[in-house]
Amino acid sequence: MSQASVFLSACRCQPTERTPLWIMRQAGRYLPEYRALREKHGFMDICRTPELAAEATLQPIRRFGLDAAILFSDILVLAQAMGAEVEFRPGPVFRTRVDSPAAVERLAAAGVREATAFVPAAVREARGLLAGRTPLIGFAGAPFTVATYMVEGGGSRNFERIKSLLFRDPGCAETLLSKVAEATGEYLAAQAEAGADALMLFDTHAGLLGPEEFDRFAAGPVERVLARIRPEVPRIYYSQGTGGCLKRIGRLPVQVVGLDYRMHLGAARDVLGPDRAVQGNLDPAALLGPPEDVVRRTRAILAANGGRPGHIMNLGHGILPSTPPEAVHTLLETVREWRNRP
Amino acid sequence: MSQASVFLSACRCQPTERTPLWIMRQAGRYLPEYRALREKHGFMDICRTPELAAEATLQPIRRFGLDAAILFSDILVLAQAMGAEVEFRPGPVFRTRVDSPAAVERLAAAGVREATAFVPAAVREARGLLAGRTPLIGFAGAPFTVATYMVEGGGSRNFERIKSLLFRDPGCAETLLSKVAEATGEYLAAQAEAGADALMLFDTHAGLLGPEEFDRFAAGPVERVLARIRPEVPRIYYSQGTGGCLKRIGRLPVQVVGLDYRMHLGAARDVLGPDRAVQGNLDPAALLGPPEDVVRRTRAILAANGGRPGHIMNLGHGILPSTPPEAVHTLLETVREWRNRP
Repeated sequence: MSQASVFLSACRCQPTERTPLWIMRQAGRYLPEYRALREKHGFMDICRTPELAAEATLQPIRRFGLDAAILFSDILVLAQAMGAEVEFRPGPVFRTRVDSPAAVERLAAAGVREATAFVPAAVREARGLLAGRTPLIGFAGAPFTVATYMVEGGGSRNFERIKSLLFRDPGCAETLLSKVAEATGEYLAAQAEAGADALMLFDTHAGLLGPEEFDRFAAGPVERVLARIRPEVPRIYYSQGTGGCLKRIGRLPVQVVGLDYRMHLGAARDVLGPDRAVQGNLDPAALLGPPEDVVRRTRAILAANGGRPGHIMNLGHGILPSTPPEAVHTLLETVREWRNRP
Repeated sequence: MSQASVFLSACRCQPTERTPLWIMRQAGRYLPEYRALREKHGFMDICRTPELAAEATLQPIRRFGLDAAILFSDILVLAQAMGAEVEFRPGPVFRTRVDSPAAVERLAAAGVREATAFVPAAVREARGLLAGRTPLIGFAGAPFTVATYMVEGGGSRNFERIKSLLFRDPGCAETLLSKVAEATGEYLAAQAEAGADALMLFDTHAGLLGPEEFDRFAAGPVERVLARIRPEVPRIYYSQGTGGCLKRIGRLPVQVVGLDYRMHLGAARDVLGPDRAVQGNLDPAALLGPPEDVVRRTRAILAANGGRPGHIMNLGHGILPSTPPEAVHTLLETVREWRNRP
């Protein structure tokens, strides 16, 4: 990847001439070209077919010229490869819950590289299409979030099963998390070896945890994942609902902290200090509002950053399927026009 | 109510000889005597029958001798009285969604006192049974949380309808919130007049909001509610997932801030300052774990308070139905045995 990438420079907290922008879940249902692809192929078929995954990865880059691409995939690809069979209807539903020592024992941590060889293949395919013009982010679910899906057997409203496991049988939870962390390390290392320019961990469910549990069941496993990956590839850790754990997040060995929309970006930077880049944090629902509100809110976030190096503009959560693509243009133009005043 | 109540003194940030304790959702399914009551009566029948509501209110007081009782009721009683018909199966399901200007127009803000006269009647009944020995908390849902149920038509996993309304049609959302705030003010004033010793607003869904929207759609309506109630009755504002909005919460005209379990209680007190009491914040799932963990975690919270006046021990969210009642005894004994070291 060219040294000139504003995205990679911002990841490293280096000054950039403008603020880079990409969008969580930027390849997705809000795009007509993605819906057209999905009419011909199942969701998991796209994930598992390198040419199709690369095509989906490129769609938002072609349309918007964003500053980073992110591999089209799903955080549950790894769960599947570990033997936790999952279907999308359209939300994920597991055949069985991984909520007992015996079920944890049955999960496979070895053999994950072979079972997910289509993922680094998709990285290579997408890198070829991007031709060095746009950096590519590889990713995985953070262990706690993947484990939560496994224990709940899919999505959940109250998350009582995972919470119950953490407090009733923390040893079993730790065994599960260690196994997932080991597999995740292999999985991300393979993406880095295939040429991913940055790596991201999504910890969407970490907001279920208080500070003590966050440290033990979210941050610790993330550190075990990252210990397995060569440190020169920038790492991004995104979590949701974890404002009360921001100091602990600031001690993770990552260059970039992804912020949800629930906190003031400037206040978060004050806590994290000048050595951590941040990514975020426009509320995805803002893109459903009128263009003048998109402009105003986007500028408010850029102003909250206050010209500090190391800000990657993004949403605070994935883009909503009902978003009009024009709203992304408005966001993009607002970011492109912004010049930091000293 | 006797001036000697440790709960009311703590609400006012006055020093107390020990830390008071009560438990959110303390009258509920984890209690065998409550399940016995529910075998004979429907949930809403209990809410609407003062003698039954008072009986349920007293159950945890008789069993545990907690430091405050809270009226047995539901935050959707008010929604119902405003004309949004709701059934419990067992989660709330509304007959129609209140998600358009026309639907908001149809809601009744007037006549709420008459339609909910059974609530102050239950307050009087419960006060009679409590006989001045234990203070009674009256409550309502905070406007944003009640409005969220109305707009979503019940519980939700992704809350896309309310988020969409807030950003697409904030004027309609404000009209809805104003109407709910007006009714909520009347509803709480009636409970205060009937003798409630403290009043609490539950804003369980406020964590859906970023700082700008929290200010406009959660905090503003709460202030409109509280402007309608005489200020000498202590007020408690509980919200969830709002750690990034704590400074704004600290400006609400309430004596007590209810904390969820996602933040360190001492850090929250540092932000809120010495004039605000706090309530919380043990993770409810902790009560599913072994007694020694309940003791350790409870002591950690008491220690985090560090002897400051104005701490009411509680959970950080409602007690889980699967909680063994013995765990509440463990919590209670740990709090009773605690002595603050200077």
